[in-house]
Amino acid sequence: MAIGSYDREELDELLESRQFRKLREMMSEMNEVDIAEFIEEQEPEKKVLVYRMLPKELAADVFSFLEVEDQEHIINSITDYELGKIIEDLYVDDAVDMLEELPAIVVKRVLQNATPQTRNLINQFLQYPENSAGSIMTAEYIGLKRNMTVEQAFAYIRENGVDKETIYTCFVTDSKRCLQGVVTVKDLLMNPYDTVIKDIMDENIIYAVTTEDREDVVETFNKYDLLCLPVVDHEDRLVGIVTVDDAVEVMEQEATEDFEKMAAMFPSEKPYLKTGVLELTKNRLPWLLILMFTSILSGTVLMDYEHAIQVLPLLLSFVPMLMDTSGNCGNQSSTMVIRGMAVGEIELKDVLRVIWKEFRVGLLCGLVLAAANFVRLMLQYPGRPMLSMAVVLSLVAAIVLAKIIGCVLPMLAEKMKLDPAIMAAPLITTIVDVGSLLIYFRVACALLNLA
Amino acid sequence: MAIGSYDREELDELLESRQFRKLREMMSEMNEVDIAEFIEEQEPEKKVLVYRMLPKELAADVFSFLEVEDQEHIINSITDYELGKIIEDLYVDDAVDMLEELPAIVVKRVLQNATPQTRNLINQFLQYPENSAGSIMTAEYIGLKRNMTVEQAFAYIRENGVDKETIYTCFVTDSKRCLQGVVTVKDLLMNPYDTVIKDIMDENIIYAVTTEDREDVVETFNKYDLLCLPVVDHEDRLVGIVTVDDAVEVMEQEATEDFEKMAAMFPSEKPYLKTGVLELTKNRLPWLLILMFTSILSGTVLMDYEHAIQVLPLLLSFVPMLMDTSGNCGNQSSTMVIRGMAVGEIELKDVLRVIWKEFRVGLLCGLVLAAANFVRLMLQYPGRPMLSMAVVLSLVAAIVLAKIIGCVLPMLAEKMKLDPAIMAAPLITTIVDVGSLLIYFRVACALLNLA
Repeated sequence: MAIGSYDREELDELLESRQFRKLREMMSEMNEVDIAEFIEEQEPEKKVLVYRMLPKELAADVFSFLEVEDQEHIINSITDYELGKIIEDLYVDDAVDMLEELPAIVVKRVLQNATPQTRNLINQFLQYPENSAGSIMTAEYIGLKRNMTVEQAFAYIRENGVDKETIYTCFVTDSKRCLQGVVTVKDLLMNPYDTVIKDIMDENIIYAVTTEDREDVVETFNKYDLLCLPVVDHEDRLVGIVTVDDAVEVMEQEATEDFEKMAAMFPSEKPYLKTGVLELTKNRLPWLLILMFTSILSGTVLMDYEHAIQVLPLLLSFVPMLMDTSGNCGNQSSTMVIRGMAVGEIELKDVLRVIWKEFRVGLLCGLVLAAANFVRLMLQYPGRPMLSMAVVLSLVAAIVLAKIIGCVLPMLAEKMKLDPAIMAAPLITTIVDVGSLLIYFRVACALLNLA
Repeated sequence: MAIGSYDREELDELLESRQFRKLREMMSEMNEVDIAEFIEEQEPEKKVLVYRMLPKELAADVFSFLEVEDQEHIINSITDYELGKIIEDLYVDDAVDMLEELPAIVVKRVLQNATPQTRNLINQFLQYPENSAGSIMTAEYIGLKRNMTVEQAFAYIRENGVDKETIYTCFVTDSKRCLQGVVTVKDLLMNPYDTVIKDIMDENIIYAVTTEDREDVVETFNKYDLLCLPVVDHEDRLVGIVTVDDAVEVMEQEATEDFEKMAAMFPSEKPYLKTGVLELTKNRLPWLLILMFTSILSGTVLMDYEHAIQVLPLLLSFVPMLMDTSGNCGNQSSTMVIRGMAVGEIELKDVLRVIWKEFRVGLLCGLVLAAANFVRLMLQYPGRPMLSMAVVLSLVAAIVLAKIIGCVLPMLAEKMKLDPAIMAAPLITTIVDVGSLLIYFRVACALLNLA
């Protein structure tokens, strides 16, 4: 919600009736995110028209919030001079994100219109490996020197702060650009003007290295509640910063990837509605194929007990219930463990505690479900106590087995440096199916003398 | 990682050899999060010992990062005077979080040792509904007046800023505490000292209302890349702020809840390792029971075609593969849609686009899987082309059906104001199972003349 928020209908009307001066005035009071949204909803020609109307100081900010398709469209519709202005005003991380998605020919034109300095910086940032700290950082930070006074620091910030992603955390570097300390604007405000930075800077710096995994960067943000994290290269030189909004975006992306992997899909790069049918199919097919052929095993178990089924076809009617229930139980355990490991609540050293816990939970769940089932079976098939017995006994055993497989496999994957998320519902279900069918038919054959 | 990070072994040694002065000195250079971690790893008596050693200005910060069990232990081991100091120094949101978990008798003692003002504030905050904006906000913000100059604002911040959660966003209120504008420290720094606040404050304020759902708060944070969001009551009076670190925590909790719901569990309040077996069982049983009884339906379908199975037992061997594959396909679609709606990428109005997309993806996946299966069947059962045909035809139909059910049900839940996350793998699988078994046996009976 927003007090004094913009009136969407008024905007549309102003644009419709070509009252561009008023429209421009209204937009200059709006939030960049809302302007970007307004532009995105226009017809292609109007997008450029509205975009060109923006006050200079808003243009690059709004541009960075546009979808890449719209960015491309605007780039292709403006002059080299206008393009050059945008590129210089964009933060490096936003420029890099955009360039990674644009077609090569557009990238070439963009880089040609950047100053040599910006071009070099962008090229350097484009080279950091995907999913590394370097790939999510930006270059616009405030760098101070240790011998500056608070007064000098403020003067420096006033002069250079406009274009920085954050001015609230400042970094102190030496002549070799090595990181020496951190000082916040709060520290500066709380100390007299003649204080020297080196006396108030914090030398216990939390930082990341360019090649570090971006997931670790996010963990550091969460652990220390940071607003901003410096990134250094392998010679300890400060090369960039990650701001909290970018860390939050990574967090959301990583969670989405886990959801996708746990549903037996390869993570997609783009939002669902923007992903083509072919790409979606490509992401989903590999696991479907693997799981399909694995589930043939369950079919084989069924055929092994063909004789028992021929003698007592009723046995069959409990197969889906057994398979579904044990699958669900395994799914619950694996989800708890995978998520617990992802947020750092469960570690590998907890494996025995987890198994012991799941064993007891499994036993309890199994007993309650078995009791409910036993009542139902005794009512529905009063003359068949041994069959009912066979069903509920195998139900308990299958549930306990499922709970244990469900918690052990993700931890095993983690131990083997695989992604635990692949050991989720789909694979667990297939594995647990085989186990529960085997238990069921063995128990039934023994109790009912079918073998 | 941290430059000049603390040496854990040295800390242990200092504590072991009772060199408390050195230990205290070392801790005063450390990050509060790391100190809290160090305290948590000590024996109970040593926890209090180390905690009491902390410099005054660190004590409350470290306290807020401790687990609630340790907070309780420390509260029970210190004097009323010490307790009073802690309570006054804690941010209201941290105090409220803690009080919500402590036993009533401890809560009583804590409130008795707070000043009347703090006690009233805490009591007011404790009353906001769970999961509301009010329940995650805190009271320590910087409030300015519209007629202050930049110089006066800085003087005010210098005097009052030490205890505020953030000083970087300041809120301008009128005499009735109604929110009028927002001004950042960056704005203050970029303008001359004699500028009047009302001329530079932003009147287009993004804010939340105390009763608003905390999920909406998080969405606003993400949409506008905020560091801080003001919260007003129903009379537009500013009552608190939500800072980005708290929004991030909510984001993580909401994602965890979705993972749990999608695996047919009630979300747990506590981390896995701290949740008792009984509570885990209670969270998992209800859905297991519902799903177990629903899956009886699949068993009934099997029994309906008992005759066909008696005639051709081989039919059975493809049942698990059909059930598993269609379940997996439905799971993939529902996960995409549930997550897409959770992060705001997919909206209800997209329903036809989603169905059309899933139909095509389903058809493609189905055709590929059917082709792979057909090859395998023709090799394994060369004399049974009609059986192979029945299997692959029903496979394609079941997959398309699963994809469509998988995307429609979560959207239907959203439409009916239910939580879409319940329409995930477990329930989808059970529903899809019935459908795919019906398709399979109908097709098989028709093609193989079994009816």
